[in-house]
Amino acid sequence: MSEVLSHRTEALLRRLVRRDASTALNKVVARSRPEDVAAAMEHLTLAEMRRLHGMIADRQLAADVLAHLSDASRDELARELPTDVLRDLVDRMEPDDATDVIGGLDQDRRDELLEELEDDPTGEEVRELLTWPADSAGGLMAPNAFMVPHDATCSDAIAALMARHERIESIYYVYVVDAARRLIGVTSLRSLLTTPPMTRVSDVMSRQVITVGPRTDQEEVARYVARYDLFAIPVVDEGRRILGVVTVDDVVDVIREEAAEDMMRMAGVPDGAVDRVGVATQARNRSKWLFAALASGVLAAELISFYETSIARAAILAGFIPMVMGVGGNVGIQTATLTVRGLATGAVDASNAGRFVTREVAIACLLGVGFASLLGMYAGLRFGDASAVGVVVALSIAVAVTLAGAVGAMIPLGFARAGVDPAIATGPFVTSSLDLLGIVVFFNVARALLGP
Amino acid sequence: MSEVLSHRTEALLRRLVRRDASTALNKVVARSRPEDVAAAMEHLTLAEMRRLHGMIADRQLAADVLAHLSDASRDELARELPTDVLRDLVDRMEPDDATDVIGGLDQDRRDELLEELEDDPTGEEVRELLTWPADSAGGLMAPNAFMVPHDATCSDAIAALMARHERIESIYYVYVVDAARRLIGVTSLRSLLTTPPMTRVSDVMSRQVITVGPRTDQEEVARYVARYDLFAIPVVDEGRRILGVVTVDDVVDVIREEAAEDMMRMAGVPDGAVDRVGVATQARNRSKWLFAALASGVLAAELISFYETSIARAAILAGFIPMVMGVGGNVGIQTATLTVRGLATGAVDASNAGRFVTREVAIACLLGVGFASLLGMYAGLRFGDASAVGVVVALSIAVAVTLAGAVGAMIPLGFARAGVDPAIATGPFVTSSLDLLGIVVFFNVARALLGP
Repeated sequence: MSEVLSHRTEALLRRLVRRDASTALNKVVARSRPEDVAAAMEHLTLAEMRRLHGMIADRQLAADVLAHLSDASRDELARELPTDVLRDLVDRMEPDDATDVIGGLDQDRRDELLEELEDDPTGEEVRELLTWPADSAGGLMAPNAFMVPHDATCSDAIAALMARHERIESIYYVYVVDAARRLIGVTSLRSLLTTPPMTRVSDVMSRQVITVGPRTDQEEVARYVARYDLFAIPVVDEGRRILGVVTVDDVVDVIREEAAEDMMRMAGVPDGAVDRVGVATQARNRSKWLFAALASGVLAAELISFYETSIARAAILAGFIPMVMGVGGNVGIQTATLTVRGLATGAVDASNAGRFVTREVAIACLLGVGFASLLGMYAGLRFGDASAVGVVVALSIAVAVTLAGAVGAMIPLGFARAGVDPAIATGPFVTSSLDLLGIVVFFNVARALLGP
Repeated sequence: MSEVLSHRTEALLRRLVRRDASTALNKVVARSRPEDVAAAMEHLTLAEMRRLHGMIADRQLAADVLAHLSDASRDELARELPTDVLRDLVDRMEPDDATDVIGGLDQDRRDELLEELEDDPTGEEVRELLTWPADSAGGLMAPNAFMVPHDATCSDAIAALMARHERIESIYYVYVVDAARRLIGVTSLRSLLTTPPMTRVSDVMSRQVITVGPRTDQEEVARYVARYDLFAIPVVDEGRRILGVVTVDDVVDVIREEAAEDMMRMAGVPDGAVDRVGVATQARNRSKWLFAALASGVLAAELISFYETSIARAAILAGFIPMVMGVGGNVGIQTATLTVRGLATGAVDASNAGRFVTREVAIACLLGVGFASLLGMYAGLRFGDASAVGVVVALSIAVAVTLAGAVGAMIPLGFARAGVDPAIATGPFVTSSLDLLGIVVFFNVARALLGP
């Protein structure tokens, strides 16, 4: 689409900032959306990002660009900006964006900035919003909602809307409150307009309002918004008074962020792995999660050395280590992923966990026996003189795969019961455990059948 | 939240349908939201799901429930329903939901149903919508948008809105069109209300409208909606005439669906792996993707047997096979995942692919050398008499990890250039290739240093 900043324009911005061409840069920036400038900045180094941001003449645009950066880039850039510049930018933002910026600073600078904003309405709202955890409904919400009293008429409500001049985030729903300002219903702007003007809002509102508390986890907020196709969800305190509203655009960001996190976790990429750091830092960050693989490699080496005599006697056995490990590991990670997903969607819970594990073990057992027949035949025929090798491979695979199904289903369930995020189980953890389990199974079967 | 159907209510629904308690069931269903009834149905067998759906007395609710099922469940249930029942349900749905239901049927039943809906406005709209691929903007859109001519005043626009009685999906934006009905701007319902009524809509509208074409891929639609925080995005033809509107709730579903698919692909779980099939079918479905692991296991066995003499001479070497494979595989999957993600976000493209690969190889090389020193020392000290074993392990790991970085970065880039979805590279494909690569490297280093 012509309106979306193309990769070419992003490259142009990069060239202009490198050449320090302020006038040309501002011309490009002025006809771009802040979202696109922010996207282009994501691919710059921190120094370039800072220079580009400083070159933007329109300070409202500079504030919008800062607000639209990814969390990591926003925090990095904000940390680099002098307090007076930051104060001016924050003052031009919506309170929820200002809170994100200030919340990403170190405690000292945060206090300094909040002190600067002492007598400022934004400062007040930010201080309020900072009381909630960043990954909760309170941390996502905008503190203003359009509310009308239940005894207002539709025409009163429209008049009230027309009279409000400050920006209210994206009004789509109109929340109806009682005399004590408790939320009792919801209607839409369109309903207000298409109903005879003297009708009371309480007669057109729906009383079934989906709400969340300020401490509701952002993933749960996302689940409600997704399930009920909401554009916004009100955040209420225990007395059902509205504290703010989480809009669907923030929920979209949460869903994308969590999906990216899930993927990175499965691939064993730790949080620190971002573009902007140097090669050495990146290598150091990434090495963290590789220690699981290293440790399991060392344990595997120890285990195998323990069975050295078996290998010395039938070197061909060594050839099947990768197969037993690989097939078991793959079945285990399939099962673990399906279990984590079942827990996330609610398809698996305490009430049916037993049945679920039994089912998964049955599936794994079928897979194990199936593969065992195939691979046992292959091993027996191919490395035939000792047809016992075929039996060892077949039996090991059947046992390893069945155990992999059991472990893959039980580890996430165990994590969930212990209050730990079960998604960890989809990372290198389960695979490493299963590698070792496969080796133990394999050599014990070999010893049992072929002698020590 | 009290309004969200709890797991307990879901269990209650299951019990009632099993006991065939129609009256009690309808009582529970009547005070539930269709989204919650649909969610409860996801955990039933197909037979139970069908029975529950047939028991719902309120047929509008039955239609809403069908529309809110997951794609897989909706298609399964729809296939089971008689044509006259389906016709009645589809007739009660929004055109985009009706299209999803009809689009999921076999060709014969689809034609039969469309013929039944011959003279029906829904039938007309469904036929139109079915012309677009299901995973494109055209497949997601609702065919009605609220449009006003550019020379209307705000008060005209509001009057037009009040006069429209048919349901238009969630009006938030008001699209402004010229005399030839080409889209020229956008404004919001709130702007219409807060602007002096005699102002022309063309004076309050924004001319920068983000649009997509009917064939735009749904992932791209999702990217626009996420980047620009949109509640809806208009779908236009080549002449910029509006064909329909994709609303954010559909985009939320797309993002969640794609995230789930990504996870399943990484875990090597094929599409057919759903709850509702029996254990044997499930095992058969899941076995499909395990053949990669099997094949690579067989290849590994062949490779290792080729190096059998090396092992027979130094059985201890066998112990390091899992380590070399594991560390290389983990680095490769990290790199592949970061590459796939970089391609998806636009951080990596043709213009910087070379630089990206160099950087990834450099990181992998640092990791490889680091791990090589650690593990080589371990191998040398622990299995010390032949300190050559330490050198073999260290060198193999350094080479295997560096190659893993190169392969992990280049496979997704190669897929992307060939027009294949690069995300496939995060599945068992890359890991299996790297396992084999690790073995080849390991034994060649061993032969070179220890003799054949």
